[in-house]
Amino acid sequence: MINIGVIGYGYWGPNIVRNFNATEGAKILSVCDRNRQALARACKTHPHIRGTSDCNDIFNSSEVDAVAVITPASTHYELAKRALQNGKHVFVEKPFTTSAPQAEELIELAAKKNLNIMVDHTFIFTGAVRKIKQCVDNGMLGDIYYYDSTRVNLGLFHDDVNVVWDLASHDFSIMDYLINEEPGALAACGKAHINGMEDTAYITFYFSSNMIAHFNVNWLSPVKVRTTFIGGENKMLVWDDTNADEKLKIYDKGVAVTNKEGLYDLLISYRSGDMWAPRVEQTEALRLESEYFVDCLRDGKTPVNDGCAGLRIVKLLEACDESIRSNGHMVTL
Amino acid sequence: MINIGVIGYGYWGPNIVRNFNATEGAKILSVCDRNRQALARACKTHPHIRGTSDCNDIFNSSEVDAVAVITPASTHYELAKRALQNGKHVFVEKPFTTSAPQAEELIELAAKKNLNIMVDHTFIFTGAVRKIKQCVDNGMLGDIYYYDSTRVNLGLFHDDVNVVWDLASHDFSIMDYLINEEPGALAACGKAHINGMEDTAYITFYFSSNMIAHFNVNWLSPVKVRTTFIGGENKMLVWDDTNADEKLKIYDKGVAVTNKEGLYDLLISYRSGDMWAPRVEQTEALRLESEYFVDCLRDGKTPVNDGCAGLRIVKLLEACDESIRSNGHMVTL
Amino acid sequence: MINIGVIGYGYWGPNIVRNFNATEGAKILSVCDRNRQALARACKTHPHIRGTSDCNDIFNSSEVDAVAVITPASTHYELAKRALQNGKHVFVEKPFTTSAPQAEELIELAAKKNLNIMVDHTFIFTGAVRKIKQCVDNGMLGDIYYYDSTRVNLGLFHDDVNVVWDLASHDFSIMDYLINEEPGALAACGKAHINGMEDTAYITFYFSSNMIAHFNVNWLSPVKVRTTFIGGENKMLVWDDTNADEKLKIYDKGVAVTNKEGLYDLLISYRSGDMWAPRVEQTEALRLESEYFVDCLRDGKTPVNDGCAGLRIVKLLEACDESIRSNGHMVTL
Amino acid sequence: MINIGVIGYGYWGPNIVRNFNATEGAKILSVCDRNRQALARACKTHPHIRGTSDCNDIFNSSEVDAVAVITPASTHYELAKRALQNGKHVFVEKPFTTSAPQAEELIELAAKKNLNIMVDHTFIFTGAVRKIKQCVDNGMLGDIYYYDSTRVNLGLFHDDVNVVWDLASHDFSIMDYLINEEPGALAACGKAHINGMEDTAYITFYFSSNMIAHFNVNWLSPVKVRTTFIGGENKMLVWDDTNADEKLKIYDKGVAVTNKEGLYDLLISYRSGDMWAPRVEQTEALRLESEYFVDCLRDGKTPVNDGCAGLRIVKLLEACDESIRSNGHMVTL
Repeated sequence: MINIGVIGYGYWGPNIVRNFNATEGAKILSVCDRNRQALARACKTHPHIRGTSDCNDIFNSSEVDAVAVITPASTHYELAKRALQNGKHVFVEKPFTTSAPQAEELIELAAKKNLNIMVDHTFIFTGAVRKIKQCVDNGMLGDIYYYDSTRVNLGLFHDDVNVVWDLASHDFSIMDYLINEEPGALAACGKAHINGMEDTAYITFYFSSNMIAHFNVNWLSPVKVRTTFIGGENKMLVWDDTNADEKLKIYDKGVAVTNKEGLYDLLISYRSGDMWAPRVEQTEALRLESEYFVDCLRDGKTPVNDGCAGLRIVKLLEACDESIRSNGHMVTL
Repeated sequence: MINIGVIGYGYWGPNIVRNFNATEGAKILSVCDRNRQALARACKTHPHIRGTSDCNDIFNSSEVDAVAVITPASTHYELAKRALQNGKHVFVEKPFTTSAPQAEELIELAAKKNLNIMVDHTFIFTGAVRKIKQCVDNGMLGDIYYYDSTRVNLGLFHDDVNVVWDLASHDFSIMDYLINEEPGALAACGKAHINGMEDTAYITFYFSSNMIAHFNVNWLSPVKVRTTFIGGENKMLVWDDTNADEKLKIYDKGVAVTNKEGLYDLLISYRSGDMWAPRVEQTEALRLESEYFVDCLRDGKTPVNDGCAGLRIVKLLEACDESIRSNGHMVTL
Repeated sequence: MINIGVIGYGYWGPNIVRNFNATEGAKILSVCDRNRQALARACKTHPHIRGTSDCNDIFNSSEVDAVAVITPASTHYELAKRALQNGKHVFVEKPFTTSAPQAEELIELAAKKNLNIMVDHTFIFTGAVRKIKQCVDNGMLGDIYYYDSTRVNLGLFHDDVNVVWDLASHDFSIMDYLINEEPGALAACGKAHINGMEDTAYITFYFSSNMIAHFNVNWLSPVKVRTTFIGGENKMLVWDDTNADEKLKIYDKGVAVTNKEGLYDLLISYRSGDMWAPRVEQTEALRLESEYFVDCLRDGKTPVNDGCAGLRIVKLLEACDESIRSNGHMVTL
Repeated sequence: MINIGVIGYGYWGPNIVRNFNATEGAKILSVCDRNRQALARACKTHPHIRGTSDCNDIFNSSEVDAVAVITPASTHYELAKRALQNGKHVFVEKPFTTSAPQAEELIELAAKKNLNIMVDHTFIFTGAVRKIKQCVDNGMLGDIYYYDSTRVNLGLFHDDVNVVWDLASHDFSIMDYLINEEPGALAACGKAHINGMEDTAYITFYFSSNMIAHFNVNWLSPVKVRTTFIGGENKMLVWDDTNADEKLKIYDKGVAVTNKEGLYDLLISYRSGDMWAPRVEQTEALRLESEYFVDCLRDGKTPVNDGCAGLRIVKLLEACDESIRSNGHMVTL
């Protein structure tokens, strides 16, 4: 049995508690939040859980095996470090940290203490992303031409991270998981209209192959859009995460150059065939991730979403900030 | 009665002929196309029209008052110039020309000969764009934060222009019409996967105000998307041109900073109110544009979509090409 | 060459003229409409066509081979009869006539004179319906449990037929084409809210098999719905005719009884698999129907949508009226 | 504090427990389910709750104030009766009972014992239904022409009730709440394809006014549809409960007879104006209902969804069964 202490019961914390609670082999011992109302909600919903407003109660408890850090990004480094120092495994909300050196320090500390870090890249546990992974890996799509993602809505403004760290971090971790090629450079532009944090941003990734990736993130959109297009040589895929029943659509559409004797004899043919919407596993992603966390601790496995995965994403996010500050100048990775 | 000769009966030409034909005060005299099958189709559908494969028949005809140039972009300059030289008014498909100097030369020539040029920026005659114009001009949206457009589908590859000239040219002309501020700089990136022409491109416009504009255009998308988001301080607008009945939706949503005593006391409030979908005039845009062309010729008016409007768009398109060639480097306008 | 005279240039007439005009082997000679404005529109769009306000000009013309009757339903019988009496083939808008005896008389007259009747059941020429026909005929769907159609919108009120004759007539002809079983009885209920004609109606068809069919038609709907569900034992099909790109969706979903030892041991299993959207041919239905009309006349073939098909539909429509008048009492066919 | 015992932890029970648990003034004491796995799930999720497989533990507990009966419909009467006999208030899932006499007996028993019955007509607590109620009551829609509801999906087959009792019961209770007129008669038809229970059914309600209501319910639909159209003289409303953000749309569309000198001079005018989607309160309906239950008990109020409301719906459901058995014969209410 893995005993877990949770720090942070704001927006995401209740989902963490509910899912770990329902996971075989895991048990939530205590929840910490400095906000009294949040703590009261936790105790009303889960009367058997110990509530505290002092995180030392969790760090110092000899019963706690692992700490879930579900707090604002700017506090991740400090809290995760203290958990590791106290010999606890760490489950930390994304983004892992707010700088690469912080992430590297935590990875090193965990290694030295033989502890596990799992970064909550929830989306890679969704049925949709796991099905896309199959389609990419088995070659169904063919060479990938572009990866184009839009993640916008009227979002909660953060005061410690901008929209790139908040929303694009999801997409970067999804793409990191799906695509077997790391970007060589990126360019980003963004605007802050409200509180000094960029609320609107556009990011382009460049690759050494012919692929291009683009991310559109926005906290000021009147409607929620969660769409990723992956255009392949053989097939094209659209993932609409707001569609309850037909999240994935794979199109037998494409363009082919069938003849190539000089530029002017180029014959382009268009293929417009059927569409196929594979059934997508419905299990809640966080449930699978909770079980995977318990599995990894029990079997001593390194999770796919370990500290190193978290670090790769943080490096991309830092490069975005650098590019935005220089008016969209390309940053080599 | 304005007698019109049409050069080019490919994809767009039939719409031009059908609409001018139905316009009071206009008459299509002849259609020219070097493709015999296209010409046969024109004559089968419109038995009263003179068909020819030699455009000189049109340029030299004393009966022809105006020439509609509905041919590939790379031929616009040459054909429009000959029309003007022969004393004909010109209606020319977008993009006006393939370079700014060409556009400037045509504008000058028309002025000297006292002839009219109208560039077929069809979209500004749609009910949707005219309704958006009202909403922008009457202040309903408030200060505009961002203009975000996506225009993608499995598109016809051109061999003389890339996807920016083909698709983004529409959006640039729409935005030029809607927004009373010209961009100060732009950055664009694109990839050519098939025939050496960029088929995927992302363009960002920078303004001296706090507005940002972004355009996503793609010839390799499995589905057709035609969406423009305009995020304003007061209201937010979504135009989905693929939606037959509810093209425009205006959301009473937004974010406001209500208190501002130091950065850490910033109070952000969210407003999520009703949505309103105004009725949009259904008349075919090209019909209105045909009538407007006849009106302008008859009354000696300068059309809003004159050569100068065409030139502004061509300058933006040229700057996109320059930015793409330099890997997304910002180009000052 | 089949020379055609068209009577009626209201809502549907322009489509008839445009399509026959573009059909190889057919030629529209003249158009008749008593409405001067309609006639002027016809002549402006098709300057080579003879316009007339007297239908005798068409009936008496020795050049005319076939007459297209595109007028209100209540005039079909009289006009078609005069066309046949004058030795012309007949193409008649649906519904064929407003009573079964009229239809029978026309069928007999055409047989005697060796002339063809084609009733314009346009939908059976759409790519969607032809693809569904394949799926039904090749057994993909399995035994059919239900056929459920909704056809509603803010419709044009007729003063000679109700919403059943106007809208459900489409669905009856589609079902007549798709399903190899004729209904044994029907029940219908409807309400007239505006002009004494039923504008809202619900019709149920009963079959000797276990299938049930239902039709929902309405002239007072704020949105246009054109949806048909066909629930089969093996697969289930949804046809949404308002969806431009994914009209047909076939679901690998179903319910099976896997064990049946006494009612209480009934084991029901649910299957929820992939969805498949076959590509649907985009050619305009009326174009194919025009060509089919010309083919049938040239080759002496009896069309699938001949007078007998028209009569079958009229009988169903008459039975609906009878049921509505008796407050939904079941009418045996 | 109202102490509650819950009987039944199948599909709906967990929602009941979660919501009452979170309600101020209520406390779930114990949960009963004969299924060991269900009980284990309840105890894992809510470790503070007493689990039992014997419902007498609840009936006999002196601590329990109210019993929530969340079991198959055929057991409601027996369990509710025993709860009332033991002096407990009753919250019972819909349908209230499986026959009107049972419902009447329970109402009488509760009255005698001065206990409350609340039937879980959840939908009347949704933001959407409460907003529609406003629009109906304040006259915005005008006289109502039709009420047309579709509630279909691949549903869980019950072995004690058919699809009318399972799904249409929701719609009947919604309509009962919204419309201030009771139907005078109804006609229903249905088919059982799988387990002897009707899985497909169509019901029409007749009123003494000019209104008509229709319900389409189906357990064999490949897609989930939850749509209600309410066509009024002044405005028309569409409620799509599967649409997360725009559940309600109100259309300024309609038809008017503007002149009426004899039938042939009838002038019908069409109005096609804007659409308005009012913001809909997002609070979970069951949360509001839980709070309302507690309020009613505390303040001695009779809930709107009391036993009498439950009885009205049961009577409609019984009439449907009678009509289906007689092949759609109209049943007077």
